[in-house]
Amino acid sequence: MTDMLYLSPEEIEALSMRVLQKHGLGVDHAAAITEVVLAGQRDDCQSHGVYRILSCVQTIRKGKVNLAARPVLQDGAGAIVRVDADMGFSPLAFQLGVDPLADRARRYGLGALVIQRCVHFSALWPEIEALTDRELVALALTPSHAWVAPAGGRRPTLGTNPIAFGWPRDGKDPYVFDFATSAIARGDLELHRRSGQPLPAGCGVDAQGRPTTDPLDVMAGAMLTFGGHKGSALSTMVELMAGALIGDWLSSESLDYDEGAGASPCHGELILAFDPAMFGDPLQASARAESLFEAIESQGARLPSQRRYAARARSREQGIAVPRAMYQDILALASEA
Amino acid sequence: MTDMLYLSPEEIEALSMRVLQKHGLGVDHAAAITEVVLAGQRDDCQSHGVYRILSCVQTIRKGKVNLAARPVLQDGAGAIVRVDADMGFSPLAFQLGVDPLADRARRYGLGALVIQRCVHFSALWPEIEALTDRELVALALTPSHAWVAPAGGRRPTLGTNPIAFGWPRDGKDPYVFDFATSAIARGDLELHRRSGQPLPAGCGVDAQGRPTTDPLDVMAGAMLTFGGHKGSALSTMVELMAGALIGDWLSSESLDYDEGAGASPCHGELILAFDPAMFGDPLQASARAESLFEAIESQGARLPSQRRYAARARSREQGIAVPRAMYQDILALASEA
Repeated sequence: MTDMLYLSPEEIEALSMRVLQKHGLGVDHAAAITEVVLAGQRDDCQSHGVYRILSCVQTIRKGKVNLAARPVLQDGAGAIVRVDADMGFSPLAFQLGVDPLADRARRYGLGALVIQRCVHFSALWPEIEALTDRELVALALTPSHAWVAPAGGRRPTLGTNPIAFGWPRDGKDPYVFDFATSAIARGDLELHRRSGQPLPAGCGVDAQGRPTTDPLDVMAGAMLTFGGHKGSALSTMVELMAGALIGDWLSSESLDYDEGAGASPCHGELILAFDPAMFGDPLQASARAESLFEAIESQGARLPSQRRYAARARSREQGIAVPRAMYQDILALASEA
Repeated sequence: MTDMLYLSPEEIEALSMRVLQKHGLGVDHAAAITEVVLAGQRDDCQSHGVYRILSCVQTIRKGKVNLAARPVLQDGAGAIVRVDADMGFSPLAFQLGVDPLADRARRYGLGALVIQRCVHFSALWPEIEALTDRELVALALTPSHAWVAPAGGRRPTLGTNPIAFGWPRDGKDPYVFDFATSAIARGDLELHRRSGQPLPAGCGVDAQGRPTTDPLDVMAGAMLTFGGHKGSALSTMVELMAGALIGDWLSSESLDYDEGAGASPCHGELILAFDPAMFGDPLQASARAESLFEAIESQGARLPSQRRYAARARSREQGIAVPRAMYQDILALASEA
């Protein structure tokens, strides 16, 4: 049983701000990052919670992020909003773009937020929830590092390339999914490597292209996508839409830039937003969606993100659980730069 | 070995027009449908080729399509184009909407075509190719009949809900995928039922929710999605985006309307188009995409649709292959109404 501390949001905030500023980030970047890691820890997403403070510091130490980055909102054409993240961490760039994106979606029915040249470590669901909070439907795509072979291949070519989607629900937590198009998340692969546990079948191949469940062999070979050729096609779509289309790096370019530093990926992101009020009658849309959710849940199936929302409710009551060892690791970073 | 006829496009066109008009469709609907089934047969997509003439006639005979439908282009708001298909077959409605959609994408960077109240039998890739032909990136979603259980469930709730995507390539066939979010296409399930062959594992459950490879048991129970909970989430997204959002039927409503007739599904469709010239530098986008395709193909992996494009090239040289028995079945419909 992991030894847990139970902290208030304010305690986590204070720790995160202290560490991130100590390592050279300004208050605005530190606050935007803190909001994201706090949300992850609150929702018991251990791989996107305070653990990411460690990886942000790792990225800073390797010199793979612009600490002085000033994200700039560029007036995109038509329904497109563009933010140049200036090679800084992405959360501040997203904060700058989210309201202009919502505005485009409300004006044109749909809009696109293009974030360029950002260092990306966060889950996509906090961004999705920022849009469902604004009563918009949202779809987000981003490349990562090229660790994943296409279906039928053996060479790491595609990123873990997450796809996230959200649908606002009146008075309820939104319908949100956010998953890697790889068969296993990179963080889970790392955990298997550390613990020496074999992977589930179908997660990767070795350098000769042979199926393997050994995490080290997969790291020397390639991860695989979920869902065979269909997942591979979706992952390719993410490279095309959130890389080539928006004029930013593919996952392979991000990995080249990393030069083995083990820093967070650096590339762009594409977030689409849709306004139900412009597509039709939002009350009818909501009623129809609720009938679908009811049909799913009434047969014992679960909606995605329910585990997160349950953890969120627990965190409100008990405080936010943080493994004591993780807390100590982060605290140590508050005194060493 | 199936006994094949090799026909010219004109011969298939003449047959299709004759049968469809004989069964009550006007020349415009017949021509739009003919274009789609001809493309399917030419590309050796047997389940979306001339076979669909039989299912169109079945739908007509069951009274589940409006033969006199006049699709109407409604001036949607902002970047949204809306076509009411008037309960007719979808291809004519798409033809009416495609240029206005391309116009919106070029003006705003991205646009949405909402087709409402259409009887839908066609593959999505002909629509995707109509947009890549116009140098646009395209994404299409549509519900179907509710035959598929959500992950963790056992009741048919979701449609086979295809997702199709296209990326234009200069001087080459476009990058296109078009797949059902069910583990197996409905047409393939029908083929297994007819031949009595067991299904691959993971395609469905029986009425008690137990995994089975018996096609009849799956038809009494439910199909499953590809890729577990991820495929299930994507399928749910299709219901939400191409059903609830656009104010049209979910797959469950389509199946209710069918009342066991075995007609084609009736619902809406959502097609998004993106203009690379508005998102950035289209030459740079194209160069980046080509480098990705090269990385995929150089390791022996295939791009989607290559089998179709190879068949297309063969059809140009040898004529379009049609199983003789299928040809006879269709020909018989030319003399009976």
